Amino acid sequence: MNTSNSGEATPRRICVIGAGASGIAMIKVLNERGLDFDCFELSDRVGGNWVWGNNNGVSAAYNTLHINTSRKRMAFSDFPMPEDLPDFVRHDHVAAYFDSYVEHFGLKDLITFNTGVAHVERLPEGTFAVRLSTGEIRRYTDVCVANGHHWDPRMPDPGFPGADEFEGEQIHSHAYHSDAQLDGKRVVVLGMGNSAVDIAVDASYRAKSTVLAARSGVHIIPKYVFGRPYDQAAASELLPGWLRWPLARPLMRLNTGKMSRYGLAEPTHKFAQSHPTISSRVLDRLAHGAITPKPNIASLGKDRVNFTDGTSVEADLVVYCTGYRINFPFLDAGFLDPGADNRIELYRRIFHPQCPGLYFIGLVQPLGAVMPIAERQSQLVADHLQGRYELPSVAAQQREIERYRARLARRYVASTRHTIQVDFDDYMLELRLERIRGQHRVAAEGGPGSPAP
Amino acid sequence: MNTSNSGEATPRRICVIGAGASGIAMIKVLNERGLDFDCFELSDRVGGNWVWGNNNGVSAAYNTLHINTSRKRMAFSDFPMPEDLPDFVRHDHVAAYFDSYVEHFGLKDLITFNTGVAHVERLPEGTFAVRLSTGEIRRYTDVCVANGHHWDPRMPDPGFPGADEFEGEQIHSHAYHSDAQLDGKRVVVLGMGNSAVDIAVDASYRAKSTVLAARSGVHIIPKYVFGRPYDQAAASELLPGWLRWPLARPLMRLNTGKMSRYGLAEPTHKFAQSHPTISSRVLDRLAHGAITPKPNIASLGKDRVNFTDGTSVEADLVVYCTGYRINFPFLDAGFLDPGADNRIELYRRIFHPQCPGLYFIGLVQPLGAVMPIAERQSQLVADHLQGRYELPSVAAQQREIERYRARLARRYVASTRHTIQVDFDDYMLELRLERIRGQHRVAAEGGPGSPAP
Repeated sequence: MNTSNSGEATPRRICVIGAGASGIAMIKVLNERGLDFDCFELSDRVGGNWVWGNNNGVSAAYNTLHINTSRKRMAFSDFPMPEDLPDFVRHDHVAAYFDSYVEHFGLKDLITFNTGVAHVERLPEGTFAVRLSTGEIRRYTDVCVANGHHWDPRMPDPGFPGADEFEGEQIHSHAYHSDAQLDGKRVVVLGMGNSAVDIAVDASYRAKSTVLAARSGVHIIPKYVFGRPYDQAAASELLPGWLRWPLARPLMRLNTGKMSRYGLAEPTHKFAQSHPTISSRVLDRLAHGAITPKPNIASLGKDRVNFTDGTSVEADLVVYCTGYRINFPFLDAGFLDPGADNRIELYRRIFHPQCPGLYFIGLVQPLGAVMPIAERQSQLVADHLQGRYELPSVAAQQREIERYRARLARRYVASTRHTIQVDFDDYMLELRLERIRGQHRVAAEGGPGSPAP
Repeated sequence: MNTSNSGEATPRRICVIGAGASGIAMIKVLNERGLDFDCFELSDRVGGNWVWGNNNGVSAAYNTLHINTSRKRMAFSDFPMPEDLPDFVRHDHVAAYFDSYVEHFGLKDLITFNTGVAHVERLPEGTFAVRLSTGEIRRYTDVCVANGHHWDPRMPDPGFPGADEFEGEQIHSHAYHSDAQLDGKRVVVLGMGNSAVDIAVDASYRAKSTVLAARSGVHIIPKYVFGRPYDQAAASELLPGWLRWPLARPLMRLNTGKMSRYGLAEPTHKFAQSHPTISSRVLDRLAHGAITPKPNIASLGKDRVNFTDGTSVEADLVVYCTGYRINFPFLDAGFLDPGADNRIELYRRIFHPQCPGLYFIGLVQPLGAVMPIAERQSQLVADHLQGRYELPSVAAQQREIERYRARLARRYVASTRHTIQVDFDDYMLELRLERIRGQHRVAAEGGPGSPAP
């Protein structure tokens, strides 16, 4: 019996780190399975990144933030969002939805608020010593990491020449909390991701001037395609990705036309080879000249920003929308060290092959919402904790990780953005099938509690 | 010889009222034909409605205003707009374009600025006595009215019950000059026309809350259809209206989906039965809940607005986007009195059947820009002044006016908005054909200067 990793011989005590979207999905499943857990949350409330002004101090939300996934596609499977909400809800709707979720399922009293996890140590016998921000140390058989991956800002590295001389303000998008920060300024936004286009659109209404500087071309997906939220248009986990993207590509393109029409660089990669940017608004503002497109920043001067095409503009504020580092400050490097490359090696994006008992929830970058994914990941982990889902051999796990990495490399532009990328529907199907495969492995090995291969 | 109306026997002296888009189109043609004219402009510059903060005091422009017609479709035929401008240019681009137009064609010195027309009197012999704002009276053989029709605000009449008790601010959209007027307020916008949706979108970025109250459902056209400006998609004067609209309708609908998807009332009329509202932005803001849709206002209270569905909201500012009266304060009622119904009876929307020598330029409401229309109207009027274009009999003119009115009544929702409505491409073709018909009438009657029938 592999008592450290599965089976019912050892009473499980599970530590869940974080009560954001992924953490609450995890404890909901643990709770309904009757498993024994603690959940630690830095803040005084659930919702993590979706709580604007979260007192955990690390939320990336801004006052104008709306979710890019339509209401019906972001909800947990057994708790629909109120029908009277708009299709693409605002941050406070998302936060309120999480509040009512924990309320409805009686989870709130099961969370230890205002408490962080300072350190997770793996003990020789395979259990974990978890030191809390209070100094207390508790023992667990299993640790679920759900601390999110949009909180540790990645600044341009190396910085641009002249960045030190620039007398205006330079911030990362993580420090963008309110559109009032843009009022009357000459703003340069660097990046073409979702935060970048959101901030550029906000600036086009509030700033004195707005420049959107792109490091590379992207495909921009309109939020509505043929009058329906884009993510309800041709989305189903039963429609395989190799068929879905070729179907979606011309439809999206038909809607927006060429990116160069709007003064943007044409992407050098194909549609779906990069995490897409979803905005109906930025193309409209570009078409009206309310946002001026530019290529990458070349350097900064005292009061100006110079671009790689030789042009330059005067500026008061540069907003670097240059993404995030994946970071687990409570884990020793030996466990999992994403490093500068955001490198993550987890079986099915969840299980640590070398460290049984350590699970990661929501550590994926889907085109779509993380909520339904976190829910299905949590069910897989709970099955595993209850001996109903068995992992394959460590060698087989390693092979899957290699296959995933090769698939990413084939499909996506090499970038720190694309190390945990999944297609929502494909990955949801993958989790469904993996659950069945893991059940078969249990059966093949003589039922719950049998030794792992 | 009809010396008062056509032919070259009488030396023509022409008065042009206004140097907005229509007035400058007129004087450009008059100037290149070598005709003798004065042009009076209230302001110290050309451009009229498109000059934000125009010192004529009647411009309806606001700081966030962009034209709803794409650059290529709004330009005069022989003076393209700069290629580096965005597709849908801002008010100051339009105003600068007009400046460079009068500069290029040497028209600026031919305009009398800071001078209004106070009164136009038709003298018994068929000429006109024009009293200027300076008190001076000048004689003309012909008067071209190009004073615009978006400057005399039409407020709801009768006003809503309780409007007097409302302690917030109530303005007409004509008094909306800057989005700063919305900052932090609880705003209710009444109307579903282009100003209404523009102001509601501005409010969704600047106000505390935004309600868009619709008196009736409208069809909203996206500014881009399949990646092209909507007005370049299927537009040509060679494609007849009866074919164009049935083609356009499903395309537009495919792009936006049903209006009720966004919480808006479904229009009770068909697409193209009402002057359409063009906005890519308002549907997006509705879909994000940043604008709350409501039906018509029922009444106002001290600090709130009540709607016809029984709901109500607190409000600080009500913006009535309820359109304009057509008004010619310098004309006696006997000439042309639009009255409360905006009733206009002009042959081909230009010629006054009972008052030879009086012409109206740009007195149409096109789906499209007035500039190319004003240009073609001006050519027709200049042809007429030079005896190259002959009007049909007064009775024939009256019959055309009746046919136009019947066509409007069949096609459009009865409304003061739809008394001067034209389909851009159809009307452009109509003017082209009318010019040929008028040339034939001249030929049939023995050449220039022959008597009118």
